[in-house]
Amino acid sequence: MQKEVRITAKDNPSVKHYRHLRDNKRARRTEGLFVAEGLRIVQDALQYPCLVQQLFVTDAAWERFGRETQIQEMGMILHISDAVGDSMSDTQHPQGVYAVCRIPERRPVTELLRQDGRYLVLCNVQDPGNMGMILRTADALGMDAVISAGSCELFSPKVVRAAMGSLLRVTLCETDALPLTALMRTKHITTYAAVPARDALPLTACSLGRGSAVLIGNEGSGLPGEIIAACDQKVTIPMQGDAESLNAAMAAGILMWEMMKSGR
Amino acid sequence: MQKEVRITAKDNPSVKHYRHLRDNKRARRTEGLFVAEGLRIVQDALQYPCLVQQLFVTDAAWERFGRETQIQEMGMILHISDAVGDSMSDTQHPQGVYAVCRIPERRPVTELLRQDGRYLVLCNVQDPGNMGMILRTADALGMDAVISAGSCELFSPKVVRAAMGSLLRVTLCETDALPLTALMRTKHITTYAAVPARDALPLTACSLGRGSAVLIGNEGSGLPGEIIAACDQKVTIPMQGDAESLNAAMAAGILMWEMMKSGR
Repeated sequence: MQKEVRITAKDNPSVKHYRHLRDNKRARRTEGLFVAEGLRIVQDALQYPCLVQQLFVTDAAWERFGRETQIQEMGMILHISDAVGDSMSDTQHPQGVYAVCRIPERRPVTELLRQDGRYLVLCNVQDPGNMGMILRTADALGMDAVISAGSCELFSPKVVRAAMGSLLRVTLCETDALPLTALMRTKHITTYAAVPARDALPLTACSLGRGSAVLIGNEGSGLPGEIIAACDQKVTIPMQGDAESLNAAMAAGILMWEMMKSGR
Repeated sequence: MQKEVRITAKDNPSVKHYRHLRDNKRARRTEGLFVAEGLRIVQDALQYPCLVQQLFVTDAAWERFGRETQIQEMGMILHISDAVGDSMSDTQHPQGVYAVCRIPERRPVTELLRQDGRYLVLCNVQDPGNMGMILRTADALGMDAVISAGSCELFSPKVVRAAMGSLLRVTLCETDALPLTALMRTKHITTYAAVPARDALPLTACSLGRGSAVLIGNEGSGLPGEIIAACDQKVTIPMQGDAESLNAAMAAGILMWEMMKSGR
């Protein structure tokens, strides 16, 4: 692999474009692009055809990682100086590998839902760390899809970092929660609103499995009343201690586990 | 409540002592003290007798929180200027409430273990965020104790922040893993080593419940081989996706849920 291009100017247009995408939610949405930093996530992205649009590698990273197969196979690499890399980095210990990637097309939810599927619906989940942890867990447990209804941006740098490659592996879609519950009813998928309320069905008394969807609400305020009312069931994780101690990502993880375990 | 003392100097000895404890693991250990920042954790700490040694409140925080019952009931309050508060803070948006607290005495593990107890053992878990999330979940689910074997410091500012009041509510102890497995055997507590290996018992085929302990290993390297060998069983969370996607805190949460749910 020859060094075809080497960038030493922080105001190089490609470098500026990377930083613009990194910092600007609207630019990501308009252009349909996101940025990924770090060897592992970039390697994951390189496994999907046409996902990586531009790959930047610092000199130091090229020494360390230049022989990695996926990087070798990427046709065009923009070599950058370490100083340029630092201007692009969002982390304390940059690895020197940066990519501009296409946001994968998401199938419409109407095409996605299957009667025997298992779905997690995130209504207004706002913390990128929680979102990342939920996507990682959904990936590990093999959920059929994670559906975002007004939650934080899925392809922001913080979620990309927290979710690692799971963001690319999990089937994702975005829609509104209320019409989704109606659509799920027509598909015979049972909808469960996750609530802390004592009048809900305890998870221990409930057989989540194929053909079900669990809805998780905002970290602070939970699910809106109208969404809870639109669901088939209310489900709660029985607690002995302080209910505030179970955060949204952990609650989602336990609910996904209960959904997935019965189908094995 | 009169303003008995007001501190405006950042090098006031009490303020310096707070910062020294905040930044110095050895000082925390030697003096048996830790620092807590924020209204909620300080309120939690004030619920325990003699736990809070010193309470610092900025002028701004006094306006906002001075009428909170627990703060009213604390005899001696050190009023500090906002600038002094900023010098003590470890967060981006300080609430202006700081306390020096006594690290609660931990009972020896020999006195703690009960034949029908449910225990989580953390062997070399190093990430304070994971530790905090695990303690919160253990609190919510009502675990009998969390036992640290060579894991990160439990009363570091990062763990205190991540665990919130759960750090005070959960029964904690510290010991070595290998003698612990032997001790548990004499108490008829079944020990389960959590591993990603395929030759382990899948969690779906396993009835964790009363009289069991799950051992979780380091985020990167898992449990040491000699600890796995010393346990009664190997248990694994069956996965369909990428095993690396299930982080230590989430795995611990799912395992705790399985341990706790059967006992209800």
